[in-house]
Amino acid sequence: MNVTVPVVENVLKVNDEIALLNRRMFSEAHVYVIDLIGAPGSGKTALLELTLEQLTGIARTGVVVGDPATARDGQRLARFTRHVVQINTGHGCHLDANQVRQAITRLPLSDLDILVIENVGNLICPVGFDLGQHAKVGLFSVSEGDDKAAKHPHLVLTANALILNKIDLLPYVPFDVPRFREDVRHLNQMAPLMEVSVARRQIDPWTHWLLAQADKAQTNASS
Amino acid sequence: MNVTVPVVENVLKVNDEIALLNRRMFSEAHVYVIDLIGAPGSGKTALLELTLEQLTGIARTGVVVGDPATARDGQRLARFTRHVVQINTGHGCHLDANQVRQAITRLPLSDLDILVIENVGNLICPVGFDLGQHAKVGLFSVSEGDDKAAKHPHLVLTANALILNKIDLLPYVPFDVPRFREDVRHLNQMAPLMEVSVARRQIDPWTHWLLAQADKAQTNASS
Repeated sequence: MNVTVPVVENVLKVNDEIALLNRRMFSEAHVYVIDLIGAPGSGKTALLELTLEQLTGIARTGVVVGDPATARDGQRLARFTRHVVQINTGHGCHLDANQVRQAITRLPLSDLDILVIENVGNLICPVGFDLGQHAKVGLFSVSEGDDKAAKHPHLVLTANALILNKIDLLPYVPFDVPRFREDVRHLNQMAPLMEVSVARRQIDPWTHWLLAQADKAQTNASS
Repeated sequence: MNVTVPVVENVLKVNDEIALLNRRMFSEAHVYVIDLIGAPGSGKTALLELTLEQLTGIARTGVVVGDPATARDGQRLARFTRHVVQINTGHGCHLDANQVRQAITRLPLSDLDILVIENVGNLICPVGFDLGQHAKVGLFSVSEGDDKAAKHPHLVLTANALILNKIDLLPYVPFDVPRFREDVRHLNQMAPLMEVSVARRQIDPWTHWLLAQADKAQTNASS
């Protein structure tokens, strides 16, 4: 199966070139862009619903959301912002830069402060594809088990920030928080690890980080 | 990126040929083989630990387990059977027939009644790769949310059986069981949907189904 190697490199090269164009477009529009990566059911859409709600009046937000099928997530998010584009990937297991490029033609980028790209629920494949984002955020949840950072080192290594969601479930499932933190730190000393509960509406560490990053990007752009 | 299409077909063709060889080898050894597919944290390894424990003295079991990194799952399962092989896939997002072929050279197939292949935690990529298994089993869990069957139609459509795990968490997370069942039935009328709780050690529907299938395969082989 060595025949795939040069072609995969080729695809990644094309992807990276388009990602570069996306990144330039985002920077010119002064919109800060996140690629949110997490397992199916880690709570990506629920986190974004609450994020959009809490940022109303504070920042202008938009979302590009990828799923193999259905428009359910897009519909959920559309209750909180007009600027939502859903991408159905079919058998595709991740978003690529070209899909994002198509999607953002339907968004008024210059009218947005923050754009979140909710990637397809998958801890592996999305990691290798640059979308042109400014920061990659990895989302884990307590109900997945405390071994998931160690098992997905490539995501943890390359993430700019990490979120642990569903800490409200700690009394009901086995999850060794110190062990999880240690696995994360072992792989990545730089990325903040933000522990949140969407169910309890406690996501301040994440929204504060997000706003601070977006502000910083804005300041850098104008200086 | 159309260049990938013929190559992917090529890879799939090679994979299918090796899967055919695997299947023949499994049948000759009279071992019944499951490909277990579920999201990260759906409880695949925990389900298998309990399954191996409960089948002790009833059926001779073995496991091939795939993960991007670490040998943690293999070590957990080795407490219940001597016949465990761990495959680390690195950046690979699913097992393929050739990896399984390598792994089973290290197992005494003829001494086993049931072999479970625990696929990499991923609801998308593993679905398209035949490993030579007799049945494909899709595992979902309550904490992932009730929309996951509809969002992963390809897995639900092609599974021979489906499991919903973590029903003990129903009081603590929003999950509409009738909606989930309806989504499953809409896609697949044939596959049984078995609702279990590994945490409460209640997995009878699954172990009964597994033993019945293995018996049936045995009977068919000797008739």
